[in-house]
Amino acid sequence: MNKNAFMKRALQLALKGGVKVFPNPQVGCVIVKNGKIISEGYHKFFGDRHAEIHAINNTKENLTNAEMYITLEPCSHFGKTPPCVDEIIKSGIKKVYIGIVDPNPLVKGNGIKKLKNAGIEIETGLLKNDLKKYYSDYIKRFSTKRQRVVLKYAMTVDGKIATVSGDSKWISSEDSRKLVYKLRSQFDGILVGVNTVIKDDPILTSHGEGKNPVKIVLDPELIIPLKRKIFTADSPLVIIHSMDEDNPKIELLRKKGAILLRLEKKNGRINFEDVCKSLKKISIFSLLIEGGGETAWWALKDKVVDELIVFIGPKIIGGIGAVTPVEGEGIKFIKNAFPLKLKSIKRISSDLMLKYKILAD
Amino acid sequence: MNKNAFMKRALQLALKGGVKVFPNPQVGCVIVKNGKIISEGYHKFFGDRHAEIHAINNTKENLTNAEMYITLEPCSHFGKTPPCVDEIIKSGIKKVYIGIVDPNPLVKGNGIKKLKNAGIEIETGLLKNDLKKYYSDYIKRFSTKRQRVVLKYAMTVDGKIATVSGDSKWISSEDSRKLVYKLRSQFDGILVGVNTVIKDDPILTSHGEGKNPVKIVLDPELIIPLKRKIFTADSPLVIIHSMDEDNPKIELLRKKGAILLRLEKKNGRINFEDVCKSLKKISIFSLLIEGGGETAWWALKDKVVDELIVFIGPKIIGGIGAVTPVEGEGIKFIKNAFPLKLKSIKRISSDLMLKYKILAD
Repeated sequence: MNKNAFMKRALQLALKGGVKVFPNPQVGCVIVKNGKIISEGYHKFFGDRHAEIHAINNTKENLTNAEMYITLEPCSHFGKTPPCVDEIIKSGIKKVYIGIVDPNPLVKGNGIKKLKNAGIEIETGLLKNDLKKYYSDYIKRFSTKRQRVVLKYAMTVDGKIATVSGDSKWISSEDSRKLVYKLRSQFDGILVGVNTVIKDDPILTSHGEGKNPVKIVLDPELIIPLKRKIFTADSPLVIIHSMDEDNPKIELLRKKGAILLRLEKKNGRINFEDVCKSLKKISIFSLLIEGGGETAWWALKDKVVDELIVFIGPKIIGGIGAVTPVEGEGIKFIKNAFPLKLKSIKRISSDLMLKYKILAD
Repeated sequence: MNKNAFMKRALQLALKGGVKVFPNPQVGCVIVKNGKIISEGYHKFFGDRHAEIHAINNTKENLTNAEMYITLEPCSHFGKTPPCVDEIIKSGIKKVYIGIVDPNPLVKGNGIKKLKNAGIEIETGLLKNDLKKYYSDYIKRFSTKRQRVVLKYAMTVDGKIATVSGDSKWISSEDSRKLVYKLRSQFDGILVGVNTVIKDDPILTSHGEGKNPVKIVLDPELIIPLKRKIFTADSPLVIIHSMDEDNPKIELLRKKGAILLRLEKKNGRINFEDVCKSLKKISIFSLLIEGGGETAWWALKDKVVDELIVFIGPKIIGGIGAVTPVEGEGIKFIKNAFPLKLKSIKRISSDLMLKYKILAD
């Protein structure tokens, strides 16, 4: 076997991690001595040891003068586990072949530097194109461009807006609901506020109309109830919060499979710019916000929303104060209104799907 | 001159009343003696004496054995003026040619009967077709079929609903506003609640895009301020109220040219079925309701609305609680929702005009 074949094997191993490593990147590793693979490892799930550590631990052989092939630069910082480079140095390995340099600014060459300083030989560039493609989503996380954010809601003809699973109440045709589910499958992530989870208990999947997006709940105080449909394991669940790391709810939620992202509040709430940034870091490059009302509003207010998709169902709810008169105050409101451009109209029987672009003001 | 020519002259005179007699029908009258017209009269304005009385008073000649030609059966009941038949009987006129029998159930042959009982000869049927056509709107008032009622509003993409003159705040293009004005010209009447007049001060005309509809204000307690644009005389103004006839505001409003219609409240408010009936009696055979919110809701609730015309402007207002989440209560609301059928979509740049039919539930 040649060098490329060893790296190819490392890549095969990486793939085994599947979605369970989310939001970490998949990583595979082989250790070669005298031209033969003597150990293998891969990152198995989020929170698990890294591929390199598995490979080092998976053999009892002396690794002095052995060579290591890793798909991604080994980490040099304390994350959920200690830095891998320290273990590599300790092991006696003399040369490390690295697939791609970790684009994460916390690593980005630091791992290589640390290994070199310890006298370990480094070679990069094996299967370069394959690996660049393989890690393209991971690389994209560290670009400066914000992901595409779309706000979606369904309402009646008199502007009553339901929450996520409530779509079926407003829009009338089966075809429209399929369209909503299909829409979800076109996004990396789908975000709702915790109140929607509490009151509406949505599943937030694409209901078989395509791939399931990552489910994201904005829950600053971690008030999410543990018995909710959203905890079913069709797709990863991310909970964004502001609580201290020692909050006992965090461990409970992790045990239920949730990924916890902590963000500091600014002016009493979590800012959507921060939400977007942290979601990009876990490869959410397109985000569908489905409400409820407050969540939708802060997303708009924080100017992260690019497009609006509005379903209008053929119903009128009415009620006094329901057909909201803005009247005298209209001008004040209008001054702060977000101007839109109508991009498309799709008619599905008596339902309507309208797409708008939010214009810069 | 023959009989038809005399009736034709009466019709010519009737026309002179123009819109000033609204909501009364136009009526003309000539008195003939020895084959020559000796006097003429027509109903000049709402509240004025009737055509027959003018004709009787407009001559000093003795009317014994004279003949009278009237386009419409003379009244036999006390309205704003005493019954005309009494004056005709007193005058000595021996024969009355009547164009059409008054379709108003309060008269409908009673005038003829009273004249006959007094020994006056009656002939009907002159210019029958011309007069039936001339009085077709007046005749239609007494049919049982309710007029066509359309509810119109403009809202933002997040369901904020403005009042009438506020349309321009929500819809963005000049073409859309012209469409709204044109729409108004296609209706006999345009109705708003008094709060809309107070807060929004609309003119309620078609802004030169066609004929001006009759302006109708629903104002149970007569709280309408006297200095409002709606009092400009482009078209008749009707105020529907529930106050006693001796309320001093009534005279003030009449002086400003308003026509007052009194309706009893039922369950604390004026019912829209009654509104529609009383408006039909003044020849409002198509009615556009333009708000505000409460007025729109009661019209829907009273099931008089046939169609909905909704303009959607390319703006989003937002605000917490603005994107109204119905959430858990959705089902309850939906049960009472009015189902609609989407009839047409018209796109005007980034504005939308949607037409819906309200389905029977």
